[in-house]
Amino acid sequence: MAASMNPDLRKERSAVSFNTELLTNVLDGGVERTRRRKEIEALVINDPDFAHEDVNFLSRSQRYEEAIKKSALMVMKLREYGIADPDEIYWFKSVCTGMPKPVLPVDLHYSMFTNTLQNLCSETQREKWLSLASRFQIIGTYAQTELGHGTHLRGLETTATYDPATQEFILNSPTVTSIKWWPGGLGKTSNHAIVLAQLYTQGKCHGLHAFIVPIRQLGTHEPLPGITVGDIGPKFGYDEMDNGYLKMDNFRIPRENMLMKHAKVEPDGTYVKPLNAKLTYGTMVFIRSIIVGDAARSLARACTIAIRYSAVRHQSELKPGEPEPQILDYQTQQYKLFPLLATAYAFHFVGAYMKDTYRRITGNISEGDLSELPELHALSAGLKAFSSWVANAGIEDCRMACGGHGYSRCSGLPDIYVNFTPSCTYEGENTVMMLQTARFLIKSYTQASSGQLLSGMVSYLNDLPGQHILPHQVAGRPTALHINNPSSLVEAYKLRASRLVEFAAKNLQAELNRRRSKEDAWNRTSIDLVRASEAHCHYVVVKLFTAKLSEIGDPAVRAVMNNLCLLYALHGISKNTGDFLQGGILTDAQITQVNQRVKELLALIRPNAIALVDSFDFHDSVLGSVLGRYDGNVYENMFEWSKKSPLNKTQVHPSFHKHLKPMQAKL
Amino acid sequence: MAASMNPDLRKERSAVSFNTELLTNVLDGGVERTRRRKEIEALVINDPDFAHEDVNFLSRSQRYEEAIKKSALMVMKLREYGIADPDEIYWFKSVCTGMPKPVLPVDLHYSMFTNTLQNLCSETQREKWLSLASRFQIIGTYAQTELGHGTHLRGLETTATYDPATQEFILNSPTVTSIKWWPGGLGKTSNHAIVLAQLYTQGKCHGLHAFIVPIRQLGTHEPLPGITVGDIGPKFGYDEMDNGYLKMDNFRIPRENMLMKHAKVEPDGTYVKPLNAKLTYGTMVFIRSIIVGDAARSLARACTIAIRYSAVRHQSELKPGEPEPQILDYQTQQYKLFPLLATAYAFHFVGAYMKDTYRRITGNISEGDLSELPELHALSAGLKAFSSWVANAGIEDCRMACGGHGYSRCSGLPDIYVNFTPSCTYEGENTVMMLQTARFLIKSYTQASSGQLLSGMVSYLNDLPGQHILPHQVAGRPTALHINNPSSLVEAYKLRASRLVEFAAKNLQAELNRRRSKEDAWNRTSIDLVRASEAHCHYVVVKLFTAKLSEIGDPAVRAVMNNLCLLYALHGISKNTGDFLQGGILTDAQITQVNQRVKELLALIRPNAIALVDSFDFHDSVLGSVLGRYDGNVYENMFEWSKKSPLNKTQVHPSFHKHLKPMQAKL
Repeated sequence: MAASMNPDLRKERSAVSFNTELLTNVLDGGVERTRRRKEIEALVINDPDFAHEDVNFLSRSQRYEEAIKKSALMVMKLREYGIADPDEIYWFKSVCTGMPKPVLPVDLHYSMFTNTLQNLCSETQREKWLSLASRFQIIGTYAQTELGHGTHLRGLETTATYDPATQEFILNSPTVTSIKWWPGGLGKTSNHAIVLAQLYTQGKCHGLHAFIVPIRQLGTHEPLPGITVGDIGPKFGYDEMDNGYLKMDNFRIPRENMLMKHAKVEPDGTYVKPLNAKLTYGTMVFIRSIIVGDAARSLARACTIAIRYSAVRHQSELKPGEPEPQILDYQTQQYKLFPLLATAYAFHFVGAYMKDTYRRITGNISEGDLSELPELHALSAGLKAFSSWVANAGIEDCRMACGGHGYSRCSGLPDIYVNFTPSCTYEGENTVMMLQTARFLIKSYTQASSGQLLSGMVSYLNDLPGQHILPHQVAGRPTALHINNPSSLVEAYKLRASRLVEFAAKNLQAELNRRRSKEDAWNRTSIDLVRASEAHCHYVVVKLFTAKLSEIGDPAVRAVMNNLCLLYALHGISKNTGDFLQGGILTDAQITQVNQRVKELLALIRPNAIALVDSFDFHDSVLGSVLGRYDGNVYENMFEWSKKSPLNKTQVHPSFHKHLKPMQAKL
Repeated sequence: MAASMNPDLRKERSAVSFNTELLTNVLDGGVERTRRRKEIEALVINDPDFAHEDVNFLSRSQRYEEAIKKSALMVMKLREYGIADPDEIYWFKSVCTGMPKPVLPVDLHYSMFTNTLQNLCSETQREKWLSLASRFQIIGTYAQTELGHGTHLRGLETTATYDPATQEFILNSPTVTSIKWWPGGLGKTSNHAIVLAQLYTQGKCHGLHAFIVPIRQLGTHEPLPGITVGDIGPKFGYDEMDNGYLKMDNFRIPRENMLMKHAKVEPDGTYVKPLNAKLTYGTMVFIRSIIVGDAARSLARACTIAIRYSAVRHQSELKPGEPEPQILDYQTQQYKLFPLLATAYAFHFVGAYMKDTYRRITGNISEGDLSELPELHALSAGLKAFSSWVANAGIEDCRMACGGHGYSRCSGLPDIYVNFTPSCTYEGENTVMMLQTARFLIKSYTQASSGQLLSGMVSYLNDLPGQHILPHQVAGRPTALHINNPSSLVEAYKLRASRLVEFAAKNLQAELNRRRSKEDAWNRTSIDLVRASEAHCHYVVVKLFTAKLSEIGDPAVRAVMNNLCLLYALHGISKNTGDFLQGGILTDAQITQVNQRVKELLALIRPNAIALVDSFDFHDSVLGSVLGRYDGNVYENMFEWSKKSPLNKTQVHPSFHKHLKPMQAKL
C-alpha cells in the first residue's frame, strides 16, 4: 500500500510526533482490545461472502434486499464464530455493512426486542420466546411510537382489552393517529412485534403495558388477518431499514402474550399491579450512553475523511508563484476541522466513561443501591442531546469543508450524516432530554439551597447557596485562570454552569412568584433551563477529557492529547464568550488571550493532524469513502467510481429519444 | 377546502391580527405581481400534462427521466404562453417540478450557457449560437470546475492549443485532475458545453478562455470521438441533475468556437488581448444576489412546514389532566422556529434589495459609472455566504423541530435541505466569499484610516480612524440603547461590525509587523477576517430589515413585522453576547434585558405564527409537504402516502424467500 500512497499523505505520516498505534490502544481501551477488534474486522474483510456492490448505485428496494442478505449472512457467521459480545457484534457489523453507522433491518431484533423479552418476560415466557428469538424463528421489533404520539408515552392510543370469555387480549388501533409508526424492521422483516398498548380489563384502563404480537404467518410471512403492516416510505437516509406501520383491528392474542414479569392479568381479568419498576431506567441510560459513543465515532469518521482530503487537496495561492498549498494549511480550514477533531476525542472518552459508569452502577443496583441512578439518568439524557447535536452539526461542517466533492455520495459524508442525524430525535428528543437534565439540576440546586450536601457531577452547586453570592465569590478568580492548564479551564466551565443553573432557577422562581402554575412557569423558563443543561454537559465533557489526560502513559501521546483538550476547552470558551464575560468568570483581556491561543493551538496540532485521524484506525471498508482513503489516491478513484453510475449504463439515456428529440423537432 | 380544514389551523387562522394577503403583496413586491404569480402558478396547477408521480418513490434514473420530461414540457409551454421573464420562469418552474428549489437538467442551458453566449460571443458568433440555443437545437452547459480544481480558476489544467495549420484548437484534459467535473446537465443532457481552458498559441499560454465545444452528435446524441462524457454519480440530493464529467483527448474545434468578444486568436495564431473585462463582475453579483433570495425562500418553506405542523401536533402535558397542547405552545419550540421565521423575512428583503441594487448599478455601468461595483461585489459575496450558512442550518433546525416525522421524505424537509445546501459551496465557497468581503472591508478601513471619506454600507468605518478610540467613543452609548427600537439596534450592530473590522485590521497589522509576508499574515488573521465579514453582513441585514418597516403601509402588517424585526435583531445579540459585551456596546444588565425581551416577543408573535407562514403563500404543489399542507390534515395523508412506498408493492418482500427463510432453516 505504501508504494502507491499519495505523496502528501506519505510526507504527513513521516513527520508525526507520536506513535499512532499507542493512541489507538487508548481509544480501544487497551492493546488486547485493539488486537481483538482488528481480528474481528479481518474476519469480514477477508471473507468473499461479504463482498458487496456499492449501495449508492442501488434502488431502495435493492438496498433493503442487500441489507437483508447481509443480515442473514451475519447472523449465521456470528453463530459460526461464536461471537456474542455486543462490542464485538458492533465491530463485525460495521465492516460487513460497509456503512458509517451500521443499519440493518434486524437491529431491533438484536436490541430492543431481545432486551425487552429479557427484562419483561416472566420465567415461563422467557424460556419460550427467547429461545425462538435466538434461533430467529421469530423475528421481532419493538412497536412503541404511533403516528400521532412520540416522546409522551401516556398519550399512546393503542388499546389491549382483555376478554375473559376467551382469555385473550383484543388489540385495536382505534384512530389514524394510533397507528404504530417508525419501528425499525416492522414494515417487511419482522413476524412479531412487542406492542405497547393501554391495557383495559374489567372496564378499567391500567395504562401502558407490553404485549408480544404475531404479525405475519410463520412460513409464508403473509400478514395475519386483522393486521395491516407495511413500510412507512422513504426517509432521509436509512434506505436499508423498513421502518414500518402497524394497524390492528380486533386482533386477538392469548393472555399469555402479555409480558408479565411485573404486572399481570389473571385469567378472570383481575389486574395485578407491578412492584416499583424503577429499574427500566437502566436500559435508557445504557442506550443513551451508546449514542454518545455513536456521536464520537460518526464525528471521528467525518473528521478522518475531511482531514485526509484536506491534506490531499491543493487550492489557490498562499504565496504568488508557489504551488497551490494543501487546503489543510489554511487557518480557516484548521479552524473548521481541528475543534471537531478535538470534540470527537472528547466524546469518545465521555462515551467510554458513561459505559463504565453504567456497568458500575448496574452492579450497585443488583446489590440494591439505586442512589446514583437519578444523576446518571439525568447525565445520560443531557449528554445524549449535547453530543448528538454537536456531532450532527459537525458532520455537516466536515462535509462542507470538502468543497464540492463533499456533496458526492462517494465521499461517504452524506451517508454519515443521514445515518447519524436521527440520534437527535430517537431515544428521547434532544430538547426534551435537556429539560430532563434541567429538572435534575433544579432539584439539586434546591437541595443545595436548603443546605443538603450534593455529591457527583453537580457538587459544584454546593458553593451556591441560592443567594446573590456568585459574582462576589468569583471576583478574584479571573486573574487566576491558567490558559494552558486544562484543570483551570474545568474551573471556568464549572463556574459558567453554576451561574447558568442559578440564573434558570431564579427565573423559574420569578415566574412562580408571578403566580403562574408550576407547569406554566417551567415552560416560560425552558429556554434558560436548556441553556443551563448545555452548560452543565459542556462542563462534564471538559472535565472528563481533562481527567483522561492523566491516564495516558506515553508522554508523546499525552502531549498531543493535551493540546487537543486545550483546544476543545478554549474553543468552547471563544464560542460562548458572553457566558464567561457576563458571569465575571473571564475578563475582556482573557477572552482576547483565549482567541489568540486557539490560533496557536491550530498551528501546533497541524503537523499531527493526519496522525490524529489515523489513530481512529478506521479501515477503508469501515470508512466507505473515496475522499478519505488511507492511501489518499482520491481523484483516480473518484473517476472510477463515477463510471459505475447507473446513468452511465448507456451512452445515450432513453429519455433523450423519448423527450428531448421530440421537443427539438417541435421548436 | 375550509370544510375539511384541521380544527387547530382553522382556529389559528380565525385569530390573526392582520390581513395575510397584504403581507403577501409586500413580499411579492406589489398587488400586481402577486396576481401575476398566482396566474402563472395556475397555468401549471390546472394543466393535466404536468401531473406527476411523487418523485420520492422513483429510482435516480427515473427521477432524471421525469426531470427531462418536465424540462421538455416546460420549454414548449413557456414558448406557447410567451413567458420569458426570469422571475416568471422561476414561478412556472417551481410548480412544475413540485420541488422546493426547482432543479432541472436544462437549468444551466437557461442560465450560464445562454448568459455566457450573450456576454462573450462576438456579433457573428452570437447570431449563430444564440439562435441554435433558443430553439434548443443545441443544449448546452458551462464547464469550468475540474476534478482537482474549484474556486481557484488559475489552477485549471484543461488546455486549448491553437493549430494554425488547420485553424483549429486542440482541446486536452492532460491529467486525471483536469477532467471537467460537476457541471449540471453535462453528463447526459447537453450536446454542447462552454469549456474554460488555458489558451496556448504560438508556444505561449494566455490564461483561461471560453470555448464552445460540441460533445455529442446532433441527432443521435452519441458522444463524439475524442470526448469521454458521463454522469459523476449519485450525490446528496440533486437526483434530477446529471452533473457530469468531460474528458477531452486531442479534440479539435474550429477557431471560430473560441468566444471572441474580448480576446481573439487570429487565423495565423496571433493572440489579441482583451480590453479590461471588469464587467464580468456583474453576472457574479447577480447570481449571488439570487442565492440570497433562494436562502429566504428555502428557509421560508421549511418554516411554513415546521410551524404549521407544530400547530397540528399535540404532545405531552403542560397542565396535568388537560389535553396535550399544540407543540407550538412550548417556549423551546417557539425559540427554535420564530427566530428562523424572522430570518426568512429578513433575507427576503435583503434579496430584493440586492436585486434592485444590481439593476440600478447595471444602469450606471452602461453609462460608464463603475464606482459602486466593488462594494456591491463585496457585499454580494458576503451576503451569499452569510445567508446560505444561516438558512442551511436553519432548514435542518426546522426539520428536527418536527420530531420523527421530519425525517420522512413526505415532510418535504429533507429535500429542501439537500436542494439548498449546495448553495454554500457553488458560485464561490462560503469561506472564500467571506474573505473576499473582508478584503474590501480591510481596504475600506485602511482608506478611512488615511482620511478618505467612505460612502455606502461601510461608511461606519469613517468613525474609526484606526486608533484606540472606539472604547472611549462608545463609552456613553450603552445606556442609550432602546431595546424596542430597531434603529437603535442597527446602531449596536454597526458598532459591533466596526469593532470587529478594527480588531481584524489590527491583528493583520500585528502579523505584518512580525515580518510575515502579506499572504502569510492574511492567512494567520483569516479567522478574525471571517468574523468581521459576518458581523458586517449581520449589520447589513438588520439595517435593511429595519429600513423595510417604514415602507409597509398597512399598520397591522407593520406592527407584526416590527416585532419580527426586533426578534431578529435581539435574538442575534443574544446569540453573540460576547461581541456586544467585549466591545462595551452593551452592558451585562442590557444583555439580561435582551434575553427577557426575546421571550416576550416569542409570546407576542405566537398568535400570528400561522398567518406569518401563510403570507409566504406557497401553494401545496410548491411546498410538496404532507406535514406542511395548508389544510393541516397531516396524519391521514401520511398514511396514504406511505402505502405508495415501493416496498409495499407486495405483502412479502422477495428477500424473505431468498434470504430470511433459508437462514431460519439453517439455525
